[in-house]
Amino acid sequence: MKKLGVGLVGSGFMGRSHAHAFRAAAGIFPLPLTPVLELLADVDDDVAAKAAQGLGFARSTGDWKALIADPAVDLVDITTPNVLHKPIALAAIAAGKPVYCEKPLAPNAAEAKEMVDAAEAKGIVTAVGFNYLKNPMVALAREIVASGEIGEVVSFRGIHAEDYMTDPAAPFTWRLDAAGGHGVVADLGSHIISIARHVVGPIESVVGQIKTVTGERPAGPGASEMRKVEVDDEARALVQFAGGATGSLEATWVAAGRKMTLAFAVTGTRGTIAVDHERLNELQLYTTGQPGGREGFKTILAGPAHDSYAAFCPAPGHQLGFNDIKTIEVKALVTALAGGEKFLPDFREAWEIQRVVDAVVRSAREKRWLDVSEV
Amino acid sequence: MKKLGVGLVGSGFMGRSHAHAFRAAAGIFPLPLTPVLELLADVDDDVAAKAAQGLGFARSTGDWKALIADPAVDLVDITTPNVLHKPIALAAIAAGKPVYCEKPLAPNAAEAKEMVDAAEAKGIVTAVGFNYLKNPMVALAREIVASGEIGEVVSFRGIHAEDYMTDPAAPFTWRLDAAGGHGVVADLGSHIISIARHVVGPIESVVGQIKTVTGERPAGPGASEMRKVEVDDEARALVQFAGGATGSLEATWVAAGRKMTLAFAVTGTRGTIAVDHERLNELQLYTTGQPGGREGFKTILAGPAHDSYAAFCPAPGHQLGFNDIKTIEVKALVTALAGGEKFLPDFREAWEIQRVVDAVVRSAREKRWLDVSEV
Amino acid sequence: MKKLGVGLVGSGFMGRSHAHAFRAAAGIFPLPLTPVLELLADVDDDVAAKAAQGLGFARSTGDWKALIADPAVDLVDITTPNVLHKPIALAAIAAGKPVYCEKPLAPNAAEAKEMVDAAEAKGIVTAVGFNYLKNPMVALAREIVASGEIGEVVSFRGIHAEDYMTDPAAPFTWRLDAAGGHGVVADLGSHIISIARHVVGPIESVVGQIKTVTGERPAGPGASEMRKVEVDDEARALVQFAGGATGSLEATWVAAGRKMTLAFAVTGTRGTIAVDHERLNELQLYTTGQPGGREGFKTILAGPAHDSYAAFCPAPGHQLGFNDIKTIEVKALVTALAGGEKFLPDFREAWEIQRVVDAVVRSAREKRWLDVSEV
Amino acid sequence: MKKLGVGLVGSGFMGRSHAHAFRAAAGIFPLPLTPVLELLADVDDDVAAKAAQGLGFARSTGDWKALIADPAVDLVDITTPNVLHKPIALAAIAAGKPVYCEKPLAPNAAEAKEMVDAAEAKGIVTAVGFNYLKNPMVALAREIVASGEIGEVVSFRGIHAEDYMTDPAAPFTWRLDAAGGHGVVADLGSHIISIARHVVGPIESVVGQIKTVTGERPAGPGASEMRKVEVDDEARALVQFAGGATGSLEATWVAAGRKMTLAFAVTGTRGTIAVDHERLNELQLYTTGQPGGREGFKTILAGPAHDSYAAFCPAPGHQLGFNDIKTIEVKALVTALAGGEKFLPDFREAWEIQRVVDAVVRSAREKRWLDVSEV
Repeated sequence: MKKLGVGLVGSGFMGRSHAHAFRAAAGIFPLPLTPVLELLADVDDDVAAKAAQGLGFARSTGDWKALIADPAVDLVDITTPNVLHKPIALAAIAAGKPVYCEKPLAPNAAEAKEMVDAAEAKGIVTAVGFNYLKNPMVALAREIVASGEIGEVVSFRGIHAEDYMTDPAAPFTWRLDAAGGHGVVADLGSHIISIARHVVGPIESVVGQIKTVTGERPAGPGASEMRKVEVDDEARALVQFAGGATGSLEATWVAAGRKMTLAFAVTGTRGTIAVDHERLNELQLYTTGQPGGREGFKTILAGPAHDSYAAFCPAPGHQLGFNDIKTIEVKALVTALAGGEKFLPDFREAWEIQRVVDAVVRSAREKRWLDVSEV
Repeated sequence: MKKLGVGLVGSGFMGRSHAHAFRAAAGIFPLPLTPVLELLADVDDDVAAKAAQGLGFARSTGDWKALIADPAVDLVDITTPNVLHKPIALAAIAAGKPVYCEKPLAPNAAEAKEMVDAAEAKGIVTAVGFNYLKNPMVALAREIVASGEIGEVVSFRGIHAEDYMTDPAAPFTWRLDAAGGHGVVADLGSHIISIARHVVGPIESVVGQIKTVTGERPAGPGASEMRKVEVDDEARALVQFAGGATGSLEATWVAAGRKMTLAFAVTGTRGTIAVDHERLNELQLYTTGQPGGREGFKTILAGPAHDSYAAFCPAPGHQLGFNDIKTIEVKALVTALAGGEKFLPDFREAWEIQRVVDAVVRSAREKRWLDVSEV
Repeated sequence: MKKLGVGLVGSGFMGRSHAHAFRAAAGIFPLPLTPVLELLADVDDDVAAKAAQGLGFARSTGDWKALIADPAVDLVDITTPNVLHKPIALAAIAAGKPVYCEKPLAPNAAEAKEMVDAAEAKGIVTAVGFNYLKNPMVALAREIVASGEIGEVVSFRGIHAEDYMTDPAAPFTWRLDAAGGHGVVADLGSHIISIARHVVGPIESVVGQIKTVTGERPAGPGASEMRKVEVDDEARALVQFAGGATGSLEATWVAAGRKMTLAFAVTGTRGTIAVDHERLNELQLYTTGQPGGREGFKTILAGPAHDSYAAFCPAPGHQLGFNDIKTIEVKALVTALAGGEKFLPDFREAWEIQRVVDAVVRSAREKRWLDVSEV
Repeated sequence: MKKLGVGLVGSGFMGRSHAHAFRAAAGIFPLPLTPVLELLADVDDDVAAKAAQGLGFARSTGDWKALIADPAVDLVDITTPNVLHKPIALAAIAAGKPVYCEKPLAPNAAEAKEMVDAAEAKGIVTAVGFNYLKNPMVALAREIVASGEIGEVVSFRGIHAEDYMTDPAAPFTWRLDAAGGHGVVADLGSHIISIARHVVGPIESVVGQIKTVTGERPAGPGASEMRKVEVDDEARALVQFAGGATGSLEATWVAAGRKMTLAFAVTGTRGTIAVDHERLNELQLYTTGQPGGREGFKTILAGPAHDSYAAFCPAPGHQLGFNDIKTIEVKALVTALAGGEKFLPDFREAWEIQRVVDAVVRSAREKRWLDVSEV
């Protein structure tokens, strides 16, 4: 079978996850192309060499430009800090290579739009790693809404809460650097926005609220000097969807005890859906019209009847994990690269998500409702 | 022991609950006064007579003014539709009698303020039935926050969702009549606002969003003509607390499948609390600093160690119910009437709650942030 | 309306609960007789007088025989330690008075049978306080099984676990006195047996296992001398139902952390039911034949569609509590005393339950399967 | 790095899972040997060739003897129906090759013992796929018990319930063939027995109960003729552990609605643990001695602090899946094959598990308690 040479830039949390997903996807799914872990780039030759060995890449480089130029690299996969997404992606696009980029796409919507324009001008396939959209239970939520099983959507209530920045002594990281964009509203907020758009549709206007809970942090691990934090630790917004539904979104990385509360409820005129990624294999479904005395939310466990699950396990309820979701994402991407169904979210969709992120922040700063189109 | 003659005006859902609570409280708690179900007033003599028999009142009347004037009535208890709260309460106050009134106190903050002023001018004891504040698990939440166990409060996320108006064919009722005030934001929203204030403190400003989901409904049970609905079916707001915390509030009576989702989470700098009244005997607590590998939310079941529970049952986990919570409220009221600890929420607190309700609605209509002090 | 003079013997945990239930029932339900808390008997005059005042009884006595003889006492209600159930009940029966007795009925099946025979010989109405049978969710379980909604019953898996004897330093109480019968298998085990019989039907044979976890305990509160414990702290059994189903039962009062885990699952050929009294307002229901991809257990919240709930609250999901269940029991008893539907479980049913208790213990001691008919 | 040539016999549900795990393990963990999917054997050349391509094996064969003889095969991995485990394993052992075999090891304890003896006589490394023992939450349960955090173990209550044979029209499969051993007690029961032994220790005696719920089934998919079912659809047992604890075990594949209820609770003198594989990333922990009013079960979410999790994801609560657990198993096996920590469960442990399986069945047939040593 034809091979797909993967060039990975970045080898942190998400780099590892991508490498694993490419490796796993070929065994799990009947892919049209065989991914090969061809080349890994990182900040310098040593870091890259070590990471390549650990993640199973054939070769490594300290220069991402070399990676893009490498003839064996068919796909440029970007898992660097956000601030680097644009230069790398633009270079890859210029080289005519498809790009798979982690979220959020760019520090702000304007830069994201540049990336969209560049990619669309050259007809490049792009993909952004909003992985939870590939969770079969999120796919099921979308399917249930689209089918009308819960009627017209009335409201959406979503949150992405984790607690990794709760400790005021947790040091400054690139996620806190305003140069890379906003804070939690970008890092986690973009996930819940991506789900809101995926399941309900476009968001027309927002009114936001953001807060920096810990105003300064040690400048780095073990550092004694402090560094000012300029991004948000917590953000929330009321939203108006284009289709008429309303809702609220929230993101926080200081929610003590929440490890992976990417949770949402969609209420329709004839039912309600709820999903929480701390139990990512479950979807709660209520529909009106159940027999009297037998009404209740149903807990649906992910199983072979749901999108992509059967490839992992023929038995229901046996549970998919975080990396499996990424593997589904890779399958969708490889399929698209081979000319199959278009991959979503692409750069354009990621830009739309980023516009909502920016709108929340700007609305919060200006203390007013804002049309997303203003961004 | 001295008796407390109870005069109840109104005999619907909450009237029944009050009657039961007065009856039960005397057996459950060592009360300083013995409540006597003395007189019940309703829309006419027949309705009142029938209700009095069903609820165990000694006498009945079709004229609430007669009830207030009745020398055996020591406490005027109002469970009528909201629009009647003010005239009855003002008359009772004028007669120098303490008033126990269901929530929300009045159709709007201005009228609520008249009631506060009247009561305070005469030094009348007042009480408003925000019963969930008496849930031992809500008391525990307040205690945990006040003690600093979860550090400084960072955020509050609350909702009161039920589904009794989901069906578009559900007929118009007094709850939908704009003359009585706002819609769900008053009926259910006032509960979650009362908890937010009780646990976290005063709310300084809000930005709200309201929606009428079903624009017209059958004018009454079985009616073929339709009546326009002018109040909100759904409301939400972002809020800024005076103490620095931020948060969101939501109320809806069209949340298919939600029967009693009066739920909130309080996140502090060192922990998180969560409560949901569909499981009103549970409180989830997470605190930072747990040993590695053993971190988790704890599910605390209501038991004798918590406020008022022991009077109902000496064994933990045996569950209190909706009416038990009301019984605790009545105990607190009777205690206050006998000169014990002041009852809260009184009219003043209910007015403060109403101001937030009004602020949410006005903010939504004006599409802007609003200081609650503007109301 | 005609009054029902209640004579209560015993004023501990269950005495309080009975007093409350009689008081509450009249306000909650349209009863055919009005219960009056007429006379309370306890170990001596002082204890009885104090308890009577606390529980709202009109009079008191230190002599339960006087209570039985009292002409104002229409119903003899026994909430004493188990060892006293028989003499008091037999005396009441001899006096021709109906008896309401706490569970378990007697220290052993033989004594329970004497009580049955005496009552039946005189046609006396009897009632035993297996209160959880009156939980609307248990009634719903029974209804679902009886209706065939889950097909033929295949198996039953039940447990009643609490933790009040977990601490080895918890002192000896009458519950541990072998003179009063068995240990936890009688105290808690009888509850899960009562449910098994109520929902599934008669139990034909058992093989049991019992264990005394803490072999000796302080002889009393604060005592320094120790007393040997001869009864079981933990018991379990495999069972064969007469109708063909099989199952397991377990009882323990040393299950650290379990406060009210009276839980069971019934599996049928076409579905499964599960109930846990730590969330006594919920029933989990799964039925086969659900649409593909939409299969799941449904969480049914107690509401007005279920037995007796509507009398407490017109709104679903608002939660009943422990005492409400006892109030339903009292309603059923008063109804029966007025000539309405026969009350179950009566002495005969309680004897049948006791036979299973005894069979478990004897089977455990003899290390063999035992037909319940051998007891 | 040195390679490990994997020869897989069988390509069904578990064959797929093994192939995936070998592929994934090398990317997830820093393995001492690099697994290579060398050769796949199945019932005939065509089936094997097709499976090899699907699962990513380099070569295939219709003859498992050829696989054992193949010099590139360093490890013989058996995922065939149970009845074939013995001949293949014995041949591999004779060839001096390590064996990785799916569970249960053999149709009965006697045959399992032959396998143990053969392997031990030649000093062959063996491994049996009781994968749930590798779940980090099961490892945590074992660690908590071993550390004494919950005191001495008092009892164990375990069940493995699924519903894949609920439908009476589900056709006969090899799992139902008595030639391959027992029914659900072997297929699922062996899992819960393996956990009971892993967490609590050896089981000394049992009394069992087994039942065939559906007495005959279509002989195959779409078949009109019926075939008698001679194995159990449901089994349960009371058990006595050698260390003094007691407990119960249950297995059923006709538990409507249960998809992966491999669940257990361990009660100790100072705490309780509970795990359910329908939520395999959670462990419930209660310990005595918590502060008053703050007592509760803690829900611990799997995270980097727990065994092996960090290799999959640096963030807690992000969830492992079924295949990840198998990947941990493979890591442990590859480590052992490279001379690292001994792999458990090996053939000897699998034989001990099988003895309990056999003891439950024999005890059920003979209707008596049985020492496991009798098997």
